[in-house]
Amino acid sequence: MKLLRYGPQGSEKPGLMDEKGQIRDLSEVVKDIDPDFFAGDGLSKVATLDVNQLPIVPGKPRIGACIRRPGNFIAVGLNYVQHAIETNAPIPSEPILFNKAPSCISGPFDPVTLPVGSVKSDWEVELAIVIGRDALYVSEESALDYVAGYCVCNDVSERESQLEHGGQWVKGKMFPTFGPLGPWLVTKDEIADVQELKLWLELNGKRVQDSSTNDMIFPIKKLVSYISQFVALQPGDVITTGTPPGVGLGMHPELYLKAGDTMKLGIEGLGTQEQKVVNWAATQK
Amino acid sequence: MKLLRYGPQGSEKPGLMDEKGQIRDLSEVVKDIDPDFFAGDGLSKVATLDVNQLPIVPGKPRIGACIRRPGNFIAVGLNYVQHAIETNAPIPSEPILFNKAPSCISGPFDPVTLPVGSVKSDWEVELAIVIGRDALYVSEESALDYVAGYCVCNDVSERESQLEHGGQWVKGKMFPTFGPLGPWLVTKDEIADVQELKLWLELNGKRVQDSSTNDMIFPIKKLVSYISQFVALQPGDVITTGTPPGVGLGMHPELYLKAGDTMKLGIEGLGTQEQKVVNWAATQK
Repeated sequence: MKLLRYGPQGSEKPGLMDEKGQIRDLSEVVKDIDPDFFAGDGLSKVATLDVNQLPIVPGKPRIGACIRRPGNFIAVGLNYVQHAIETNAPIPSEPILFNKAPSCISGPFDPVTLPVGSVKSDWEVELAIVIGRDALYVSEESALDYVAGYCVCNDVSERESQLEHGGQWVKGKMFPTFGPLGPWLVTKDEIADVQELKLWLELNGKRVQDSSTNDMIFPIKKLVSYISQFVALQPGDVITTGTPPGVGLGMHPELYLKAGDTMKLGIEGLGTQEQKVVNWAATQK
Repeated sequence: MKLLRYGPQGSEKPGLMDEKGQIRDLSEVVKDIDPDFFAGDGLSKVATLDVNQLPIVPGKPRIGACIRRPGNFIAVGLNYVQHAIETNAPIPSEPILFNKAPSCISGPFDPVTLPVGSVKSDWEVELAIVIGRDALYVSEESALDYVAGYCVCNDVSERESQLEHGGQWVKGKMFPTFGPLGPWLVTKDEIADVQELKLWLELNGKRVQDSSTNDMIFPIKKLVSYISQFVALQPGDVITTGTPPGVGLGMHPELYLKAGDTMKLGIEGLGTQEQKVVNWAATQK
């Protein structure tokens, strides 16, 4: 299934994308696609429905983030060898973890807003995991049993805040609109091999990231198992799994986002996102 | 007001502590003390009530964490000079930020569970801020307008996971029971000067931390303003503001928690917590 949320920001309704690419309304069946949906086994409930009996949503509504307010939005750093090399970082021997803020999540086609004064905002196409059930101390072998599905994430990052203001990385990772998720949450059963998906990002039409999830240093099952040794993962938690090479920080000279730029990014089987870059001031009119 | 949540874990009810130290039930008035409570201006609603008309809760119920599921649980590192020195860290020129997991939050008197294999779990008494309304790009001068109140937090930390597994600090900060909050959320109006509160922690009856919030490097108003430059703070978000000296990591030789230990900690005007330390295995019986 491809689950999604549609409608104006802040009042999205749950839906799913049928095989013809039409949005079907789920709001009579479930309240939202959120942590309570997964905790209450909403996935099984929706799976029993006859999709053809669900109302077709007319027109072209805005698509929101495919999940509302996850309890945790955890990110993995430097999980592709060539990305570690391009950022002059050592290749990690264990997954590097940090957090994004749930309040940074936005829709896959919403504008990305540059923080005031930002001169080093950067893109990062990533595959994100959505957790389906409570996971603490789970083994690598059983880890995928705890995964509900996957979606595209743009782990937008402000490098000056991330790297030049002391301490930890999170300062550059949490700004509003820095976490577009979607367009769909694709359930695990639709993905034959999550470690064999192409992923890419185009800046103003030029492909700058172009890789495959088979280049991950730590695969999905390792990440879920590893993270569950440190934190009790809960239904609806999101883990974004690191970006392949091709970010602005790794270019010579470095290249960063400016108002008017367009990012288009996608992952095989998980759909595409497209974001216009805007200045903060433009959002306050 | 002193807001609290009482009852069995996972089904706590909202309440408040009256002037005689009796718990009054708020469950007929508000659903819970959670982000929706603050977003819906629950504080104003409760403030208009005649406390003496609220039902007294009989007996001695368990006290839960004073807030349910904050959207963000942000922490400040090394915010007291002597703590930075005792951990051999440079004194920060800007606040250091990291995240704790909302799933690590527990009640102020619940046991603290050591992670499997942990040999370096440590205590940290801290003053935590609860955010009352949306805060992005707020000035230091107006920062306290966005604060709902304060509570005690024990920022329990596993130093091996935090410091010896590569990357960022969060691995040692997110384990279940590593974030006792409470006993009360004390509204801002009850605290004459939040930068003049004594705070302390006793391990097995011996005082190991003993300081004052006037020793903070970056005061509360600076922290709220600073953090709001990087993240959209939302109603109900929790920010824990760093610990004074006296943690186990800073002792010679280092001293860490073991099953059977008792931590008692408190902050002037915000109440006290007490936690028994247990092994993971003991929680699985």
